[in-house]
Amino acid sequence: MTTTLYTGIGELTTNVARTGDPCGTITGVAVLVDDGRVSWVGAASDAPDGADAVVDLDGRSVVPGFVDSHTHLVFAGDRADEFAARMAGTPYAAGGIRTTVAATREASDDALRARVQGLVAELHAQGTTTFEIKTGYALTVDGEERLARLAAEVTPEVTFLGAHVVPAEYQDDRDGYVDLVCGPMLSAVAPYARWVDVFCERGAFTAAEGERILRAGAAAGLGMRVHGNQLGIGDGVRLAVALGAASVDHCTYLDDEDIAALAQSDTVATLLPGVEFSTRQRYPSARRLLDAGVTVALASDCNPGSSFTSSMPLMIALAVREMGMTVSEAVWAATAGGARALRRSDVGHLGVGARADLVVLDAPSRTHLAYRPGVPLVHEVVRAG
Amino acid sequence: MTTTLYTGIGELTTNVARTGDPCGTITGVAVLVDDGRVSWVGAASDAPDGADAVVDLDGRSVVPGFVDSHTHLVFAGDRADEFAARMAGTPYAAGGIRTTVAATREASDDALRARVQGLVAELHAQGTTTFEIKTGYALTVDGEERLARLAAEVTPEVTFLGAHVVPAEYQDDRDGYVDLVCGPMLSAVAPYARWVDVFCERGAFTAAEGERILRAGAAAGLGMRVHGNQLGIGDGVRLAVALGAASVDHCTYLDDEDIAALAQSDTVATLLPGVEFSTRQRYPSARRLLDAGVTVALASDCNPGSSFTSSMPLMIALAVREMGMTVSEAVWAATAGGARALRRSDVGHLGVGARADLVVLDAPSRTHLAYRPGVPLVHEVVRAG
Ligand SMILES: [Zn+2]
Ligand SMILES: [Zn+2]
Repeated sequence: MTTTLYTGIGELTTNVARTGDPCGTITGVAVLVDDGRVSWVGAASDAPDGADAVVDLDGRSVVPGFVDSHTHLVFAGDRADEFAARMAGTPYAAGGIRTTVAATREASDDALRARVQGLVAELHAQGTTTFEIKTGYALTVDGEERLARLAAEVTPEVTFLGAHVVPAEYQDDRDGYVDLVCGPMLSAVAPYARWVDVFCERGAFTAAEGERILRAGAAAGLGMRVHGNQLGIGDGVRLAVALGAASVDHCTYLDDEDIAALAQSDTVATLLPGVEFSTRQRYPSARRLLDAGVTVALASDCNPGSSFTSSMPLMIALAVREMGMTVSEAVWAATAGGARALRRSDVGHLGVGARADLVVLDAPSRTHLAYRPGVPLVHEVVRAG
Repeated sequence: MTTTLYTGIGELTTNVARTGDPCGTITGVAVLVDDGRVSWVGAASDAPDGADAVVDLDGRSVVPGFVDSHTHLVFAGDRADEFAARMAGTPYAAGGIRTTVAATREASDDALRARVQGLVAELHAQGTTTFEIKTGYALTVDGEERLARLAAEVTPEVTFLGAHVVPAEYQDDRDGYVDLVCGPMLSAVAPYARWVDVFCERGAFTAAEGERILRAGAAAGLGMRVHGNQLGIGDGVRLAVALGAASVDHCTYLDDEDIAALAQSDTVATLLPGVEFSTRQRYPSARRLLDAGVTVALASDCNPGSSFTSSMPLMIALAVREMGMTVSEAVWAATAGGARALRRSDVGHLGVGARADLVVLDAPSRTHLAYRPGVPLVHEVVRAG
């Protein structure tokens, strides 16, 4: 049990909401960390004596560690050529998700482990302290179990996404694949997973298929998440809300009914602006969601096909530039919002009792995360434990 | 005289043009650096023996150091609140450039020096090895001389921008201010500067005023640059081309005549997408310029008002996402294009004889600079001397 006092914090984003300020901003503060937890927050002048170590942050601002509630970090290969061709508008025989499935099936455990560890280091360096990882690039019983096991080595937030796409070998037997996902694949993966997810979109899985898979996952003790409304108006949001999923992710195309349903639910709308950036699609309006009272999270969707970025600061900058969020709303969505999407109360804020995940910025305020796009502003990351 | 052999380069962007590939891409290469210059480039298997040091880059890609031909790095204060208000659409009594002028005039040499050194470190960490700095936040004879002197401590590419805006104290005497800029201010600044620049825009300086100032600068031995066509169709491009300026910067609003004039000139069109990002303006079409045969550069315009980013990788990603450039065109524009805009033949490429400014990426190809937006991909920066 060691205690560290972080003092000289110019601006602290606690996310302990106060009237008119969901970010719970306080200035001129110190934070005491005791055994990986926040044990005291207050005016620097009132800080308790006797900490084992004192770190003076010299006026820097501090935000809670970013919570990236949506990633696909366990995969092999990349799709840089597909990206370059898409951006240039030149023809390219893109295999989409299946290209990555083929590469991932071929890769050894060690190769996948090295890759995911490199990406996790990248996330940490950019201030992400909690992150989810989905399976979905194997689409076989053993393969999905392997991806879940490797993901579980680096995060407790593992999501079973056998329902990512119907693999080539089941193209003429969709029902057989859904049976596999709901049966032996789920049984193999569940011990490593906390969540079940389904890609509910034209060209992927229908609402009926999605419902079967989500209910099977829930019966196996998993929480529910949905990929939905990315490519057009569809059933994803309705399904997620009807089943009480923790989050529905993408939400690029929503009708008024979707928004009303979300507003009356506990389902978080997770926006993934890296996808719109890297596929040159239109951005969703976060403003419309926020104005309707929907809880919004921001995540990276880090994956080699549609959003190969792990940068939560860039997600914040894009949310402000393109989706009508204020800087404070975007920072909240990338921290507290992500925590809600993962139904975690120990992260995403810096109230007493929270995990001591602190991101120290080389900047006097969180505004700089959007004001200084692309600039690596993370000075130091404190991670509990 | 020490020699270092960089070997194991997966993909090298030389910018030594070949048919169909302005980036002069070669793979499986080594580069020999002799006393800060590139002295040999070739297949790794043919690399000469006897280098003093050998560095294996393990398949990483290498691009020339970024050349940021347009920055305003010497200033005090920031305008984060103005930015946040602009993004949120809330009222804010913005003082614009004058806010930064007031703060900069108040700051000590040491405070300005510390700030610029911090920003230069930030540029270097992101792979920028050559950069220009403009004056323009003092607007007095002594003050502009001071900013030029401080800029000259960190770069040879210093630009006199007394014609940034008419300062408050000359609001009723524009001619008097132009006289000052062309006379005593120019004389004081010229010893530290290589370039003269003028902000030719409605609300700033007219074409006639600009021409007077640029001609005076040229007579004092300075090369010419222009800020133009940022806020609307105007005279900036025509002025730059008519006088043979090295570069006209912004080019957000161009008519067909402007593009034709640029295509027939040696004047580079320098695009600054950080400005469009941070002011939520429409982006210019680089495609239209490139298709007409105009030489295009990318720069950050790093400044506290309209683009407080120093990230050349983000400029590349934005150019690809928003301005119709291919990744290769964008990387060329951020390196060789910037060098053309500064009329430098020793940087922006990695041919034999070039300055050994190498950016080693944690990525197998330069495509990743756009494919992985926001991610700090710079593994190592080699700077000549
Ligand atoms: Zn996803
Ligand atoms: Zn400028």
